Amino acid sequence: MLEITSKNNTKIKDAASLKLKKYRQEKGLFLMEGLKNLEMALRFGNVKTIFTSVGLPKIGKQDIEVYQVNEEIIRKLASSENPEGVVFICEFLKPKKDKKDYHKIIYLDHVSDPGNLGTIIRTAVAFNYDAVILSEGSVEIYNEKVLAASKGAIFAIDIFNDDIANYDYPIIVSTLNDKSVPLNNAKKPDNFILVLGNESHGVSKEICEKATDFVKIEMSDNIDSLNVAIAAGILMNFYK
Amino acid sequence: MLEITSKNNTKIKDAASLKLKKYRQEKGLFLMEGLKNLEMALRFGNVKTIFTSVGLPKIGKQDIEVYQVNEEIIRKLASSENPEGVVFICEFLKPKKDKKDYHKIIYLDHVSDPGNLGTIIRTAVAFNYDAVILSEGSVEIYNEKVLAASKGAIFAIDIFNDDIANYDYPIIVSTLNDKSVPLNNAKKPDNFILVLGNESHGVSKEICEKATDFVKIEMSDNIDSLNVAIAAGILMNFYK
Repeated sequence: MLEITSKNNTKIKDAASLKLKKYRQEKGLFLMEGLKNLEMALRFGNVKTIFTSVGLPKIGKQDIEVYQVNEEIIRKLASSENPEGVVFICEFLKPKKDKKDYHKIIYLDHVSDPGNLGTIIRTAVAFNYDAVILSEGSVEIYNEKVLAASKGAIFAIDIFNDDIANYDYPIIVSTLNDKSVPLNNAKKPDNFILVLGNESHGVSKEICEKATDFVKIEMSDNIDSLNVAIAAGILMNFYK
Repeated sequence: MLEITSKNNTKIKDAASLKLKKYRQEKGLFLMEGLKNLEMALRFGNVKTIFTSVGLPKIGKQDIEVYQVNEEIIRKLASSENPEGVVFICEFLKPKKDKKDYHKIIYLDHVSDPGNLGTIIRTAVAFNYDAVILSEGSVEIYNEKVLAASKGAIFAIDIFNDDIANYDYPIIVSTLNDKSVPLNNAKKPDNFILVLGNESHGVSKEICEKATDFVKIEMSDNIDSLNVAIAAGILMNFYK
């Protein structure tokens, strides 16, 4: 294993640049940390480089660069306050399934909070969804807070940006309108796209016009709405 | 309305000290921001002081100090990156109901993430729970991230720290063990305490020994667990 001792080393500077969306998009690479995430990435993703200040699981792949570094470098590259001693670079994720094999899709229309997106990805994996698809204008998949909240789940599901018009499925929209059916009375199609909207503005008019079903989670008048990740969790547990 | 122009004014320094848990606990006061939160606080809480750089809703109460301040002071007192121009001081919350009138309680055993706690409080209000009770060692209720995630819901429900031994209700524990019943087959008692545990360690052995029911949310093997706020949301939607 090669050793890097200076945080001004080009490899380290290049890796650190991936903390910015601009460079991630330019290079098609993202930065992640933690041993559990690394295990998921090695199983399902395409890891290019690993920086470690601790021991590593056995890596069977030949084309991964591994560097021994010190804790100062780990802290420079990591996002968490107490990093575990492993930071790695991955290629952007590619869908693993053919689109025609999708049965259950969750579509996020301008969801903007990274913690919400990460939690929704984790929940979608728990309930065997095939894909998480994001509208343009949603939070970036490789935002460090998305990655932290997803707990490695991003590697276990197809996730990408696309226009809902490219999918010919029944569209179930979660919203409060006159047509919304309480969730417990809703029917469950075999294949569908479940749509959740922006934290403040809900699902856009364009998508509502294409919807085949509107559902609502019944709740108290004392509060305007549920957090979007909570609503997604309740809906995916029903439509699973 | 009195005006304060210096961020070194004693009133401002005293208010800013409430950003630290130590001073909150010492004074029994906490700091919050935002117009919507202020409206909730004026309806259900006990507001002591308001600092504003913008207009205010009409305040009917005589004993609230209101100060006109500049945006620099608002930024010093607020926690969010783009504060709305209103920060206020509240007294610690007091339960509004008598304990014997509680029907549905959610009990959080060492839940440590403030975003999770805030989201669970918001969900508990949505599903008409009577109280959110926290074990000792849980995250502090008045942590700024709890308040932000709760979206004002902390004023609409009883929330405090207490030992579960003080409550004589059926105890439903969410956990994965041999006795756990899948949620859809679970029975719904009229009165109960629903228990969720720490993000990493789950529900403690002591509470599991007192449990009357164990339930689980069925999910894929591809993931260890759901986020605790998501699990709480799915469970509270069932036990509502």
